[in-house]
Amino acid sequence: MRATVIHGPRDIRIEEVPDPTIQRPTDAVVRVVNACICGSDLWAYRGVAAREPGQRIGHEFLGVVEEVGSAVGLFEAGDFVVAPFVWSDGTCDFCRDGLQTSCPHGGFWGSVGSDGGQGEAVRVPFADGTLVKLPRDAAGDQALLPSLLALSDVMATGHHAAISAKVRPGSTVAVVGDGAVGLCGVLAAHRLGAGRIIALGRHPMRTEIARKFGATDVVPDRGEAAIEKVRELTGGQGAHAVLEAVGTEESMRTAISIARDGGAVGYVGVPHGGSAGVDIGQMFGRNVSLGGGVAPARAYIPELLADVLAGDIEPGLVFDRTVDLAGVPEGYQAMDDRSALKVRIAF
Amino acid sequence: MRATVIHGPRDIRIEEVPDPTIQRPTDAVVRVVNACICGSDLWAYRGVAAREPGQRIGHEFLGVVEEVGSAVGLFEAGDFVVAPFVWSDGTCDFCRDGLQTSCPHGGFWGSVGSDGGQGEAVRVPFADGTLVKLPRDAAGDQALLPSLLALSDVMATGHHAAISAKVRPGSTVAVVGDGAVGLCGVLAAHRLGAGRIIALGRHPMRTEIARKFGATDVVPDRGEAAIEKVRELTGGQGAHAVLEAVGTEESMRTAISIARDGGAVGYVGVPHGGSAGVDIGQMFGRNVSLGGGVAPARAYIPELLADVLAGDIEPGLVFDRTVDLAGVPEGYQAMDDRSALKVRIAF
Repeated sequence: MRATVIHGPRDIRIEEVPDPTIQRPTDAVVRVVNACICGSDLWAYRGVAAREPGQRIGHEFLGVVEEVGSAVGLFEAGDFVVAPFVWSDGTCDFCRDGLQTSCPHGGFWGSVGSDGGQGEAVRVPFADGTLVKLPRDAAGDQALLPSLLALSDVMATGHHAAISAKVRPGSTVAVVGDGAVGLCGVLAAHRLGAGRIIALGRHPMRTEIARKFGATDVVPDRGEAAIEKVRELTGGQGAHAVLEAVGTEESMRTAISIARDGGAVGYVGVPHGGSAGVDIGQMFGRNVSLGGGVAPARAYIPELLADVLAGDIEPGLVFDRTVDLAGVPEGYQAMDDRSALKVRIAF
Repeated sequence: MRATVIHGPRDIRIEEVPDPTIQRPTDAVVRVVNACICGSDLWAYRGVAAREPGQRIGHEFLGVVEEVGSAVGLFEAGDFVVAPFVWSDGTCDFCRDGLQTSCPHGGFWGSVGSDGGQGEAVRVPFADGTLVKLPRDAAGDQALLPSLLALSDVMATGHHAAISAKVRPGSTVAVVGDGAVGLCGVLAAHRLGAGRIIALGRHPMRTEIARKFGATDVVPDRGEAAIEKVRELTGGQGAHAVLEAVGTEESMRTAISIARDGGAVGYVGVPHGGSAGVDIGQMFGRNVSLGGGVAPARAYIPELLADVLAGDIEPGLVFDRTVDLAGVPEGYQAMDDRSALKVRIAF
């Protein structure tokens, strides 16, 4: 089969690789219908996150089960499924607690020795614990596919940011980051009943989606000016809940600074600035808490899926370009130069 | 009247100062019955936290109302009261939310221009918002006074750590810090129904109190060895809730390291190590959250007081020495050299 492979910074290739097969009784093989490129893939693309030459890449996909191992009980060939961005055994203490990202048997698609999501098929370890079933007839629903695909990472991650920031009905929320995750954070906050949602962003196409997703205010400023503006908009107090969806030192500093005293920052941006943006002195005096991390998408997909199928949320709006597998290198380039927000790969 | 005054590092004196008077209609004057010395006073004593020469000191006291301003409606002369370690107006958004430490009209006893708690009397701003009434007959109850006094800071702060660490019935809890606040954190976690409480400490007198307060395990190690030991005790997983009651870089690093994936660190140790102990990379991958800060004691005193009066908790056990006002400098010295855990001042 063909799959996306990364050979070095800005060196993404589509190559012939071995077909996946059942290796353990708990495996399934999934033929990919849709995959996509993540903002976090760009860290590898840019060489900020190290990868071995020839490593697979991509961690978001949905597809049709082709074959299952003898110990798989919940799926059969022909099932349409979405995969969260990590696999997990579904039976350990952490999986039962809904923190599948801490499963001791878990792993990340595209890590060395495993298949990546940006390929024609994927061997899925612990299929029963990992996959979530979708309606079979949805596989052909071109209008629905983008929103189902968004569940594998960005929508679940935006939701994790909102949950970690303790968004409640009526909360004033601020969202730092206008990437696909930040926008899904706006949607998640809206879904949780936020009373006011301030989106920090300046790119008109993105802020337009933010408004569609429920943002009531848009702040185009950055750094000190953004902090000042959010304080102005909130009667000097800041936001009860701040979603941090970037992961840099400046974004974390901004997020903590615009939180209301007693408020919470939910961070899901993969940290790329160390802890330098975390001002513990400021957090202490103002009782600002900090929670979040890698989102346990598997825990959230069922409830978010129900809302997607009901038509209540349409996170798929974050996809603004679709490529085929051959177009993946170009898709990376487009996301890197910000000419595309998020690229979907249709097989 | 006489009060404690700090002139510089290790230079604590008892001096004649002006008698407090009603300056605003919302003031009360309280004649102090008991006060105490806080671990955080030692930062000033050691010269780590700057003070102006001649500044008052002490922020924990209880006493009898001597006089009230014309706008004070909830108290009258003769009332026995306890003061939380900050004053607050009781009417702003933050006071109504139970975050009185963020009251824009609030302040800290002993800050420049205000009375400190370690003196014969105190002018209390916003008496209605600040003070909490105690039973009048408790003023003469020598067995009860220490526990009532502990409500002004250490017990409320320990409780804040436990709440911030999200202690729930059945939780496995670890407490970093064997000072009075850490010990009260043990008591608070026990009161909230923790299933297991691991106290980190090596001083036998302190660990004995920890056991009395509900600690089920004591870990005398520090640093990496302590982390290893807590992991061993918890089947390799760490504690659901970690209370950080020291405030140094090492204690914060230990606290985050011994938290279970998905767990929370509740920190109340005044940060004296910057943010260096906060490893955001570790927090991210394991979904460890960090909350806490300066405790809104005023919000917690009523419920804790009820338990003290019912005899359900006895936080006053943290006091192991009592001095009179003249003995205060010696009390600081004893806490500084750790020959005393916490010193009570009886007037």
